[in-house]
Amino acid sequence: MTGPRDPIASPTNPRVRAAAALRDRRERDLTGRILIDGARELLRALDAGVALETLFVCPSLCRSADCHELLRRVAPVDRRHVPVTEAAFAKLAFGDRAEGVVGVALRPGLDLTTLDPPVAPLLVVVEAVEKPGNLGAILRTADAAGADGLIAADPMTDLFNPNAIRASLGTIFSVPVAAATTAATLAWLRSRAIRVVVARVDGPELYTETDLSGPIALVLGSEADGLTPAWSGPDVQAIRLPMNGVADSLNVSTAAAVLLYEACRQRSTVRG
Amino acid sequence: MTGPRDPIASPTNPRVRAAAALRDRRERDLTGRILIDGARELLRALDAGVALETLFVCPSLCRSADCHELLRRVAPVDRRHVPVTEAAFAKLAFGDRAEGVVGVALRPGLDLTTLDPPVAPLLVVVEAVEKPGNLGAILRTADAAGADGLIAADPMTDLFNPNAIRASLGTIFSVPVAAATTAATLAWLRSRAIRVVVARVDGPELYTETDLSGPIALVLGSEADGLTPAWSGPDVQAIRLPMNGVADSLNVSTAAAVLLYEACRQRSTVRG
Repeated sequence: MTGPRDPIASPTNPRVRAAAALRDRRERDLTGRILIDGARELLRALDAGVALETLFVCPSLCRSADCHELLRRVAPVDRRHVPVTEAAFAKLAFGDRAEGVVGVALRPGLDLTTLDPPVAPLLVVVEAVEKPGNLGAILRTADAAGADGLIAADPMTDLFNPNAIRASLGTIFSVPVAAATTAATLAWLRSRAIRVVVARVDGPELYTETDLSGPIALVLGSEADGLTPAWSGPDVQAIRLPMNGVADSLNVSTAAAVLLYEACRQRSTVRG
Repeated sequence: MTGPRDPIASPTNPRVRAAAALRDRRERDLTGRILIDGARELLRALDAGVALETLFVCPSLCRSADCHELLRRVAPVDRRHVPVTEAAFAKLAFGDRAEGVVGVALRPGLDLTTLDPPVAPLLVVVEAVEKPGNLGAILRTADAAGADGLIAADPMTDLFNPNAIRASLGTIFSVPVAAATTAATLAWLRSRAIRVVVARVDGPELYTETDLSGPIALVLGSEADGLTPAWSGPDVQAIRLPMNGVADSLNVSTAAAVLLYEACRQRSTVRG
């Protein structure tokens, strides 16, 4: 048996291999567990009450202030704290992003019922989001703009892809998130009388001339294909961002940022 | 001699090797040449009058409409058109982004004098930008927002890094761009009475409560270190974006997008 003070030295150790396998979506789906890279991301997961099961720690790589704070909260005496050598850590860490800590946690629920939005929420919906980096960037902006939640409709990526977690800087744990089909998302929004405002290149109204106050969901489609036809109907408002240059589209995370901050401005929720 | 209709088949062909070497900044600096991936990016370079010297074409990989348009403009009879086999193209292309075309062009000038802004320009300045992807994303937004130019102050990356070109979708050729030291940039802005508005986490004014009309340069620093102290003085206005979440910063390209579109809104240059 490896005691709490004897670091795991072998990259083929079963615990190390089981954790590293969580970089694959199939393994995350099978086990209901996720992998979290980065001290800041792990701190935000803990703050949000995510059930951390294991924290692999490579002491010689732990240099940042965030890392030291994390090790105060999950100390060596904590049974979740598992020291590993650099050789074993290399198997666990993602590329060169090693910060000396990698965590395994239970995957948070993603049901729409977990959202529990306030009375007049500002939500963002992204349909068919494919790139974990874009999802993470949108979450980071949603956090900064003070949005009340994000729904991934028919997502093409796992929300808890380690790269999405990392790109979100851990805000995926603090911003309420859900995943559902487009049909279920629309039904859920309509049942709560949350106004559906979709961004389309050919939207008839300029986003700055549209009322973005009250209960609202800002809906963005994939860069390549836009939104599916499901996002239509008499209760769906289509808006556009101005495109003054040679290109005809913005990155989805850029469009989300411009819309979320304009909604903030109009709602005067800007606490600054 | 390889005739115009005999494709280059060898990855070690001197022309192929010389072009592939342009993925390294040092080689670009030495030769004054750049490498352009992607049919859309090449079309935008041609539209902007960039001096394309060679267009390597792998006919079996040319499937997109943009690619066919490009081959109408640089046809097989054009002496710049150089057919290559898939084996030779693999050496030229970047990762799996192969679209069947890679171009070599003379590097456009980056002097501040090339900017030639209109009377009351909207400019964006990014200091110490490091990631080609961020630079490309900001250029794409600057294009969409109709900004009059971008200045990279003390850049940590080559503006014409192939990944920056690609991330910009080729808008790096249509948006006026310059690179200069921070000192030269400030002097240039001041000599033209262009108002300097810097984004700082601790800026005293909210960006939505600041006048962003008239001749203006929106200045953003690096995510890690912010702006250098040079960006201060009685004529420098510091603004902030609201941060309502657990994270304390936005991605630099996100912050640029929010500021540029707010400037657009205030200036009513939104042509939609």
